[in-house]
Amino acid sequence: MSGPFSFRVLERDPATAARRGRITTAHGSIETPAFMPVGTAGTVKGMTPEELESLDFEMLLANTYHLALRPGEEVVRRLGGLHRFMGWGRALLTDSGGFQVLSLAALRTVTDDGVTFRSHLDGSLLSMTPERSMQIQSSLGADIVMAFDDCPALPSPRPRIVEAVRRTSLWARRSRAALAGSGQALFGIVQGGDDPELRETSAREITDIGFDGYAIGGVSVGESAERSRAVVARTAPLLPQERPRYLMGMGTPADLVEMVALGCDLFDCVLPTRNARNGTLFTPEGRLSIKRKEFADDPRPIDPGCACPVCGRFSRAYLRHLYLAGEILSMRLNTLHNLHHYAALMRRARAAIDAGRYADFLSAFRSRWTDARPSPGDLVDGPIAEGAEALRGGRARRTFAGERSE
Amino acid sequence: MSGPFSFRVLERDPATAARRGRITTAHGSIETPAFMPVGTAGTVKGMTPEELESLDFEMLLANTYHLALRPGEEVVRRLGGLHRFMGWGRALLTDSGGFQVLSLAALRTVTDDGVTFRSHLDGSLLSMTPERSMQIQSSLGADIVMAFDDCPALPSPRPRIVEAVRRTSLWARRSRAALAGSGQALFGIVQGGDDPELRETSAREITDIGFDGYAIGGVSVGESAERSRAVVARTAPLLPQERPRYLMGMGTPADLVEMVALGCDLFDCVLPTRNARNGTLFTPEGRLSIKRKEFADDPRPIDPGCACPVCGRFSRAYLRHLYLAGEILSMRLNTLHNLHHYAALMRRARAAIDAGRYADFLSAFRSRWTDARPSPGDLVDGPIAEGAEALRGGRARRTFAGERSE
Repeated sequence: MSGPFSFRVLERDPATAARRGRITTAHGSIETPAFMPVGTAGTVKGMTPEELESLDFEMLLANTYHLALRPGEEVVRRLGGLHRFMGWGRALLTDSGGFQVLSLAALRTVTDDGVTFRSHLDGSLLSMTPERSMQIQSSLGADIVMAFDDCPALPSPRPRIVEAVRRTSLWARRSRAALAGSGQALFGIVQGGDDPELRETSAREITDIGFDGYAIGGVSVGESAERSRAVVARTAPLLPQERPRYLMGMGTPADLVEMVALGCDLFDCVLPTRNARNGTLFTPEGRLSIKRKEFADDPRPIDPGCACPVCGRFSRAYLRHLYLAGEILSMRLNTLHNLHHYAALMRRARAAIDAGRYADFLSAFRSRWTDARPSPGDLVDGPIAEGAEALRGGRARRTFAGERSE
Repeated sequence: MSGPFSFRVLERDPATAARRGRITTAHGSIETPAFMPVGTAGTVKGMTPEELESLDFEMLLANTYHLALRPGEEVVRRLGGLHRFMGWGRALLTDSGGFQVLSLAALRTVTDDGVTFRSHLDGSLLSMTPERSMQIQSSLGADIVMAFDDCPALPSPRPRIVEAVRRTSLWARRSRAALAGSGQALFGIVQGGDDPELRETSAREITDIGFDGYAIGGVSVGESAERSRAVVARTAPLLPQERPRYLMGMGTPADLVEMVALGCDLFDCVLPTRNARNGTLFTPEGRLSIKRKEFADDPRPIDPGCACPVCGRFSRAYLRHLYLAGEILSMRLNTLHNLHHYAALMRRARAAIDAGRYADFLSAFRSRWTDARPSPGDLVDGPIAEGAEALRGGRARRTFAGERSE
């Protein structure tokens, strides 16, 4: 359905592990490092495909679990596949649903066969296996599909992580066998929690099977940002140089810039879109909460240095008004600004690598960026009440279910 | 603040009372007959100013009552007026708030001085008088402002309508005196319920005072569409030929096309935008409910004859999916389609008058259009629970509070 896939490293930064690359697919190429906006239900919330194109995004992520539940992958297939269904002519990547069935669905049971769970929409009893995930992803027809993995939250007891590593390799082999002949690129996922030895085991087993690209999974699943980054620092070098490396579901601006320096090529996160709907906007200095009283009369744009259409036309005062009035346009404009911010950040990161100056870019970013830890409100929206409750309980830790789909 | 206002009749249809005109304001001209999308809180729900420009709308309506409550007209004034606040460079018209304080606010008391009421936002006790309405509208700085009127629902006892006619004339004089020197155009409003004699009295008194334009108020306030149209048929000919005639808050496609034939020049209604958010889409044949099961697999656009960006890119199946998933993009795309439909309809109506063939246009429209009465769901959204309850009670009648702001 999708056809030719390739990846080429174009430049390597002399002082960091950052690299510039290009992924080629039947739906166009993706300059890496790249951020993929999350289009959970076949739409990046509030945005049209035209807008995402105008922001220069070259690949979106869509969620297999959500689309299989609604509208159902057979509907999508009959309508010509996900690209056509959602009116997006550029590249698509679908996740495997593994993360969602473990985090969103209720009453799940995990065995070596697969996961049985209840739909978060209507409570019906369903199951997901590597074969079923590949069948769904093949019907959706994304350019890149992900192997079905077992992704436990952190912290988890070591035996649970050992089991997840073993099962992820087992499922990776079954995923590869099941997808054969679809013409789609398949990425394997490395698990191993925050245990360096288990990460090594998983990386070795997954790369031994052999995939078109490799993802670091099992991060941003409950642990601190510092711990996530430490896991990536250990895992990225274990992955083949000549294949794209995709860091799953982790994505504050600082995460992106830091993880590019460790050699990651692809990113996704709901943060820019979800934060936008919650009134939290990104600037080079950090986050700005548009609801604050001090903005009631503020004629300035969100970020005076920003070239986005929102900053060109609307004041903080107007954006605050729209937010307080619960207007749809608030979510739209905030999302447009945040995605523009992410796109521009990645564009600058790529230019810095091209120029062989990524270390300078990184230190300039660090000197400007100050970010409070995410507040619980930043991360909650939709069916993740459990994670939200945990957050409200006190510790500033990441949600498990919150950042991969919305 | 706004400056030069003029109106010129360019063409008259030979067989109907339809006329082509041009309103000129400091923020550009408006080709009439024209439909104004409703931007209640300083935004047409879900749309950017750019989109409204690209749809060729030349004037928007904003609601004085809502903007005075939030963010407050002084905030808007300090930020340079409503055009600048909402990023809209073309013409604006503000209503007087008279309709909203009578329909949305609670615990209202109406005397000759004005209306006291409780805010629908926080319950605070407020009052609105002609002078206060003009003060707010002057701060907002729209090109056209409306006199403060007394607009009773239908049916109302005759003495109540007599009182409203008398009070509307009293308030019209006070409105004119209060607005003097603002440079804004002021339109008077004719009341009189469904009583031909009272309509004549009101039209005579209001035109005797003298305004830049005249509105037919007190329609679409509870009576049937047929009765509304009968009131317009009697009232429009009583208004001066050389001034624009604005029919307030009435606007199915059939209303527009029929009322243009009676000589109305300006229209506003929340129907295209509110219906859109409820999943009801306009086609030349009538309304289409996108939620219907039969569209689950339907690859066709909403309206194969439509040139809008939504019909060019998205299937009914995708739009149904977005609606069922509660996606923001559903409201956006549906609104874009419906507003495009309204804009195209008015464009064709103007071309028909220019060609001297409005009667043909009208009969072609009638032969194609079949419209069921609005369902209760079409008309409810937001703080109009009272009207919604009345509708659910059974009779298919118009809401009182529902179609002027949202």
